[in-house]
Amino acid sequence: MATWPIPHPMQRALELARKAAEAGEVPIGAVVARGDEIVAEAHNEPRESHDPTAHAEILAIRRAASALHQERLDGCDIYVTLEPCAMCAGAIVHARIARVYYAAPDPKGGAVEHGARVFAHPQCLHRPELYSGMGENESAELLRGFFRERR
Amino acid sequence: MATWPIPHPMQRALELARKAAEAGEVPIGAVVARGDEIVAEAHNEPRESHDPTAHAEILAIRRAASALHQERLDGCDIYVTLEPCAMCAGAIVHARIARVYYAAPDPKGGAVEHGARVFAHPQCLHRPELYSGMGENESAELLRGFFRERR
Repeated sequence: MATWPIPHPMQRALELARKAAEAGEVPIGAVVARGDEIVAEAHNEPRESHDPTAHAEILAIRRAASALHQERLDGCDIYVTLEPCAMCAGAIVHARIARVYYAAPDPKGGAVEHGARVFAHPQCLHRPELYSGMGENESAELLRGFFRERR
Repeated sequence: MATWPIPHPMQRALELARKAAEAGEVPIGAVVARGDEIVAEAHNEPRESHDPTAHAEILAIRRAASALHQERLDGCDIYVTLEPCAMCAGAIVHARIARVYYAAPDPKGGAVEHGARVFAHPQCLHRPELYSGMGENESAELLRGFFRERR
């Protein structure tokens, strides 16, 4: 039984993670939303695009900024299926994202509650509100399945 | 008197920083090189491109990966005029850059020797060799001049 219904943007992020797996990419999806409206979305695709920065969050933020014709995404939230890494947490700061919702924690690569803890330093220019756990089981199962098949 | 001659890739990064300033962007430049060969270069351009991720390092890394048709830049070095932020340090990890040369330290936004110290955590997947200080005065003067004019 789920603790609460998964909001639409996180459901969409999970669908995008599934699409990433189908494309042979690590299954991670991200959605930038303003209120209930989805502004931009992406899945992880560093392999296909030959781009080490092509994480779901970076692509979704770039697409949202492009769609809104502005450098900063004030008032926008991001929904992502895995705890952001240092690169993506840094991009979230630069974009001034208001709220970060992530599904599963990532003790190895995450940089929100693990490792570099990007938002926890006094120098951090912007601290989004942080929420985690919604869709955690679904996200973790997608990642486990992906790596199980490749072992 | 300079301590040592500034290598060609860092001279080019400083030229790119000057171009950024001329375009109204914070003057930071970056060059990805393999040995003596420049693979890709960029200056900071988040304002013009409406892209909060468009830091010099991110653009140079994306262009280098695209030019080499590979996700990882093994054997490549990056020369950048300012200490990388958390986003750019994270991208350097993902790209497996071998050596990072940065000119000036950045106590406010840097995440190599300040703040998030991205390469210093046990979880960090790849640790580049780090060098700082070449071209520091030139870079710091460009940044001071840019912000002085805008005050």
